[in-house]
Amino acid sequence: MESFQRIAITGKPNDSAVTDTIGRLVERLESLGRTVHVDSALALEGSTADDTLAALSPVIDLLIVVGGDGTLLHAAKTVAEHDVPVLGVNRGRLGFLVDVSPERFDEIEAVIDGAMTIEERLMLEARVRVADRVVAEAPALNDVVLQKWNTSRMIEFETWIDGEPCNRHRSDGLIISTPTGSTAYALSGGGPIMHPGIHAMALVPVCPHTLSNRPLVISADSRVEVRVAPEHIHQVHVSCDGQTDLTLEDGARAEIVASPHRLRLVHPPGHRYFDILRAKLRWGDGAAPC
Amino acid sequence: MESFQRIAITGKPNDSAVTDTIGRLVERLESLGRTVHVDSALALEGSTADDTLAALSPVIDLLIVVGGDGTLLHAAKTVAEHDVPVLGVNRGRLGFLVDVSPERFDEIEAVIDGAMTIEERLMLEARVRVADRVVAEAPALNDVVLQKWNTSRMIEFETWIDGEPCNRHRSDGLIISTPTGSTAYALSGGGPIMHPGIHAMALVPVCPHTLSNRPLVISADSRVEVRVAPEHIHQVHVSCDGQTDLTLEDGARAEIVASPHRLRLVHPPGHRYFDILRAKLRWGDGAAPC
Amino acid sequence: MESFQRIAITGKPNDSAVTDTIGRLVERLESLGRTVHVDSALALEGSTADDTLAALSPVIDLLIVVGGDGTLLHAAKTVAEHDVPVLGVNRGRLGFLVDVSPERFDEIEAVIDGAMTIEERLMLEARVRVADRVVAEAPALNDVVLQKWNTSRMIEFETWIDGEPCNRHRSDGLIISTPTGSTAYALSGGGPIMHPGIHAMALVPVCPHTLSNRPLVISADSRVEVRVAPEHIHQVHVSCDGQTDLTLEDGARAEIVASPHRLRLVHPPGHRYFDILRAKLRWGDGAAPC
Amino acid sequence: MESFQRIAITGKPNDSAVTDTIGRLVERLESLGRTVHVDSALALEGSTADDTLAALSPVIDLLIVVGGDGTLLHAAKTVAEHDVPVLGVNRGRLGFLVDVSPERFDEIEAVIDGAMTIEERLMLEARVRVADRVVAEAPALNDVVLQKWNTSRMIEFETWIDGEPCNRHRSDGLIISTPTGSTAYALSGGGPIMHPGIHAMALVPVCPHTLSNRPLVISADSRVEVRVAPEHIHQVHVSCDGQTDLTLEDGARAEIVASPHRLRLVHPPGHRYFDILRAKLRWGDGAAPC
Repeated sequence: MESFQRIAITGKPNDSAVTDTIGRLVERLESLGRTVHVDSALALEGSTADDTLAALSPVIDLLIVVGGDGTLLHAAKTVAEHDVPVLGVNRGRLGFLVDVSPERFDEIEAVIDGAMTIEERLMLEARVRVADRVVAEAPALNDVVLQKWNTSRMIEFETWIDGEPCNRHRSDGLIISTPTGSTAYALSGGGPIMHPGIHAMALVPVCPHTLSNRPLVISADSRVEVRVAPEHIHQVHVSCDGQTDLTLEDGARAEIVASPHRLRLVHPPGHRYFDILRAKLRWGDGAAPC
Repeated sequence: MESFQRIAITGKPNDSAVTDTIGRLVERLESLGRTVHVDSALALEGSTADDTLAALSPVIDLLIVVGGDGTLLHAAKTVAEHDVPVLGVNRGRLGFLVDVSPERFDEIEAVIDGAMTIEERLMLEARVRVADRVVAEAPALNDVVLQKWNTSRMIEFETWIDGEPCNRHRSDGLIISTPTGSTAYALSGGGPIMHPGIHAMALVPVCPHTLSNRPLVISADSRVEVRVAPEHIHQVHVSCDGQTDLTLEDGARAEIVASPHRLRLVHPPGHRYFDILRAKLRWGDGAAPC
Repeated sequence: MESFQRIAITGKPNDSAVTDTIGRLVERLESLGRTVHVDSALALEGSTADDTLAALSPVIDLLIVVGGDGTLLHAAKTVAEHDVPVLGVNRGRLGFLVDVSPERFDEIEAVIDGAMTIEERLMLEARVRVADRVVAEAPALNDVVLQKWNTSRMIEFETWIDGEPCNRHRSDGLIISTPTGSTAYALSGGGPIMHPGIHAMALVPVCPHTLSNRPLVISADSRVEVRVAPEHIHQVHVSCDGQTDLTLEDGARAEIVASPHRLRLVHPPGHRYFDILRAKLRWGDGAAPC
Repeated sequence: MESFQRIAITGKPNDSAVTDTIGRLVERLESLGRTVHVDSALALEGSTADDTLAALSPVIDLLIVVGGDGTLLHAAKTVAEHDVPVLGVNRGRLGFLVDVSPERFDEIEAVIDGAMTIEERLMLEARVRVADRVVAEAPALNDVVLQKWNTSRMIEFETWIDGEPCNRHRSDGLIISTPTGSTAYALSGGGPIMHPGIHAMALVPVCPHTLSNRPLVISADSRVEVRVAPEHIHQVHVSCDGQTDLTLEDGARAEIVASPHRLRLVHPPGHRYFDILRAKLRWGDGAAPC
């Protein structure tokens, strides 16, 4: 059973509850003999050998993120290259990814002593290609979204899967989602919930012009290519997790594939995916017709 | 039985098939003793007393539009103030509004001789208010769409109906649709089809954050007010029929009410709404699971 | 301002909380000088001149129903013929129709003193016709549902509206819903929410075979006729509010029209439809993607 | 490259077009030196060593099915135990599974000469358990459907996945679908399309009472258990591919797992899944809002 010795902590910036939680965490983890680094981007005082997350990732064996799911998404992509496990601590409100309460230091202590499970989560890589050249790329843990930009008209594009034509769209956009992202924007768009254990991605059209267009679940080994109609190419953005936007120049195509990296998400003992799903979607307590 | 004597014709610009059809229509209508005006915006030759549609509307008793549904939407709003009936002639492909084929001059002749029905279609009026001042307004025949603009994040806003709080949204937008618009963008967004005979509008959320949010059908006598969260107000456009965009300044609210004007849509004898619906949505010939 | 003097009370049978509430109501209403009758079907003791609801309806000026929405639906249809206003008292959990808490006798007292609003709700009438003969009929406040019965295969049927062919279905069924029913089964089936103030009904297909089939909202003045394929006619039930089932014999057709009667629903002062909608659908507190 | 020598043929019964096609197939396959058996259930004349499909399956190396997707589903389950590859020939109208036209004997000839691909399709097994005893079981290629039976009221049940509680339903039913079945009944119920290449099943609720209930995609390695509320257990059927119905006795639970067998579906050269999807769902030619 692996235990964690060198731990970095990051969190939602400019949030005093987060800062307080991080302060207490540093103290307690150090009292347990761990080496603790705080992400220098947070500009906190009093912790050992602060540095940026990017600089810390090669030397740490655990990252703790304090905040919401969005904070974890952002930090996780920074450390993914070094396969650093990530533990999410929420600010009092359960998230899909930040599933440990700051009140439950017993769970955090169990985790750093190695009593935990590590779940691997699929990540995507969005690339913009012009001819055979990759001109831009970005990782995504939730989704890559092709969306209309600066226009109130539908955009036209084609999707190709593994080199075969799949569909021609007129719509507001297309969400390519991981299982992790299936409870985020893709769910608003009408996509299915995908258990993190399946090796798949979902293509979810946004306001499709064709009534028979439906969400499509394909293997995560597939390569998705999106070819936007030339007259619409400047009215499209390719957005990764709603955090990074890529634009398309003339002749560019978007390509979405599985990333070689995974998010290694750490859960305390007793974690069950469906418990979180039920709690977050409030299954069982309302939102029901009479 | 009313017959039509002073007729204006307009159509989709820069489309030679439309120009040809208009040319033939002018000739035949004049041979039947009608006074025919062609919209000067089309810059065609050889017709009597050409002028702009706006200038013609007080003096004509029928407008013929040659083109697609979008062309008719645009022209109809120009003449609505003078209650001019509008006949839609398509370019060979049936539309929801342009339901007469250019091949069927017999139907057009029947119409101008008065053998027709006039159906009144609800129009909306979108207004931007700052305090008690209306700073911008525009009519809509299909829909008024509040949509995120220049951002990949959801926008937050509240809807109030007849002065009562209805809903708080986090979504990509909100479609307020007439029965006419219920087969257009609102249908892509998951809204119901509304028969033109009902006096109602539909509020259709676009990618709503709350899973229990649903399309809502309310009386066309209601006043819808949309209050955008101050931090999102510059990331929202209010778009009418996808043809006119209004922006919101600080402190502005959008208000949507029924217009005092109606589109008076002319149909040839034998017109049946559900026949067009079935034909356009291809009910009965496929788009079916196995 | 009308005040109510002769009041009948009914409620959910075999529910001791309901019986207690009714006992207290009788006592307080009589202490205010009202004549109170308790539905004899409930078999309670000690109240004046008990009789069946049907017998009571010509002589009362208010019916109070204690229970859930289903209890109110059932009782309201019994008294509808005599236009008796109905007040719904819930058992502690807000309903769409039973919107008064048993703790709020102040609201009930205000109502019987005439400080209330009366809202008229559309009712439907389902009829089974063979040739020109009506062989069965039943009223509905929520919905008339044509559904497959005793089969796991889809059924085939046609809908006609006002004598014109509308649609040909292969599906599990069809819900014809009032605005009141739009928050009940029709909502589970994907139909829109309809404000009670619109004069309309919704046709909501259940698991339609054709992907382009959509909920359809039409005028409540329309006559809907459903013609089931002869080979499926014995595998179909016509269910009213889930409370009354009609079967179809060979050659039979189902017809759905607005009832000449309305439910006259009484609300205490300050009632607002959208407040109840938000509370019941839990808009604003979760059931949201991350 | 494998070629096929001993071939059985079956098809839709009582269909003269099918009988004709089978007659021609037998003749041509025999002229190419193949041993051909016709399913004795079809009662055709003049073919070699006719026997039932079940008896033939151990000795054949290919099954050809002439008919629709339903015919193939039925026959495929009969031969699945012996891993016999199956080729589907339609009756002139493309199916999702019967993708070879009877006019294209060149494709059939190519297939039996070994110029083909074999695609493995997931099958499910539905079991009814009472305590630890399996009292009934049946295979499914499309779906296992738990549905209300002989009632117009919703049923209540719980789903457990791999021994963990997943969801509590009040609904008309639950569809557990393979990727193959994702274009059948599950699609009518709002489920996603799943590419046959993913190892997954979808749980699609039918008219769920809870608005936040959504289709759920899980690993095909999971074990799904459905526990129906005792008072509803006699109002539920468990239907496999709409062809076999299992009932539940008191204390029974339904269990759905991947079958150890796969359908080995044979395609002619050049087969592309998305081409069939586009053709069947008519993507690109209509069923579109205006």
